[in-house]
Amino acid sequence: MRLALLGGTGDIGEGLALRWARDTDHEVLVGSRDPERARERVEEYHAALDANGASGTIKGFENTMAADRADVVVLSVPPYHVENTVESVADRIGDAILVSPAVGIKRDDEGFHYHRPPAGSVTALAADAAPGGVPVVGAFHNLPAKRLSELEDDLGFDTLVVGDDRDANREIAALAAEIDGLRTFEAGPLSNAAEVESLTPLLINLARYNGDLDHVGVRFG
Amino acid sequence: MRLALLGGTGDIGEGLALRWARDTDHEVLVGSRDPERARERVEEYHAALDANGASGTIKGFENTMAADRADVVVLSVPPYHVENTVESVADRIGDAILVSPAVGIKRDDEGFHYHRPPAGSVTALAADAAPGGVPVVGAFHNLPAKRLSELEDDLGFDTLVVGDDRDANREIAALAAEIDGLRTFEAGPLSNAAEVESLTPLLINLARYNGDLDHVGVRFG
Repeated sequence: MRLALLGGTGDIGEGLALRWARDTDHEVLVGSRDPERARERVEEYHAALDANGASGTIKGFENTMAADRADVVVLSVPPYHVENTVESVADRIGDAILVSPAVGIKRDDEGFHYHRPPAGSVTALAADAAPGGVPVVGAFHNLPAKRLSELEDDLGFDTLVVGDDRDANREIAALAAEIDGLRTFEAGPLSNAAEVESLTPLLINLARYNGDLDHVGVRFG
Repeated sequence: MRLALLGGTGDIGEGLALRWARDTDHEVLVGSRDPERARERVEEYHAALDANGASGTIKGFENTMAADRADVVVLSVPPYHVENTVESVADRIGDAILVSPAVGIKRDDEGFHYHRPPAGSVTALAADAAPGGVPVVGAFHNLPAKRLSELEDDLGFDTLVVGDDRDANREIAALAAEIDGLRTFEAGPLSNAAEVESLTPLLINLARYNGDLDHVGVRFG
């Protein structure tokens, strides 16, 4: 498969690109609004793979070009760019699955809090913006990006998928589980996405208040 | 210490009573609005300990009597009874720490959702109802009660504490960690309680949508 990471020059994009490139045979397309920036980052990603004694296929494109070629399109952009990013690639998505990992977070002096968008969740925001018939799956919300990017880290935590198209959920769950050390579980339909996204500010709070929990992931069972 | 479980005849009360009785030297006071009911349940709890080859000290009382004697008072009641339970024992709490494990949950056809009370969280609701100067700690929200009650279960999951009095947080964290197989982390001040409580409906959704996750707990790291 071809996996596009729109905004794939950022931290969660980097982590997923490196892991998918190393652990699977899929072709990873790193998208950016600036194709030159995408290509620069792809060079860095290949250097990180080399340093890990690994290899894989990663290419850099402008976002719409990446979306155009992909079977799975991951919106690895900040939450306030989800809507315009979906709109900018809407006529290129075709029959790809759209994946939303972003979380709305606000902070105060004491911690981080879930900032629920009027749509109900960022995943729902992406689904509202997506062309009719395009399956939208929320996934990868709760992964510590830095640990994905450190290829020597064995991970050992879980990610959740949520969305109204259960076949698409399962496809993305399987794609996530191809990453070594990552397990996936399904959290149900789109209306359950807020509870999934709420976990991210909690994890940041735990890292802040517990010296021994840095870049913390979560494991269910 | 003496640990009162108000509404301790219910499922989370049962689990905590059995574990604290078996794993610690603390005296567990099971409270109920009906003292006869409390004493009946305590007999059942002792039978469960016997069946596990364990022993411990558990006694049954009317709620106010239990609160009066305790160093720690756990509000193991449904969320809609938190406020009136605190009020009913307000003049008996003395210098005990008040602990709130309840979570507001609403459900629809597709799943369970966090029902945030106007106070901001159930823990904040308990804090608002508590007499001035009484430390209130949110804890034990995310524990699968049934697994606590099954004494042969080795647990292996975590619970979080949250509240504005950090000494009280640490005291309750230590008390939780005295239960074999349970680790504790601090989630920060009271204003971070909603993110902690939101985890509970997520865990119920995961149990519903994943056949292999039943009575699921969570582990951070």
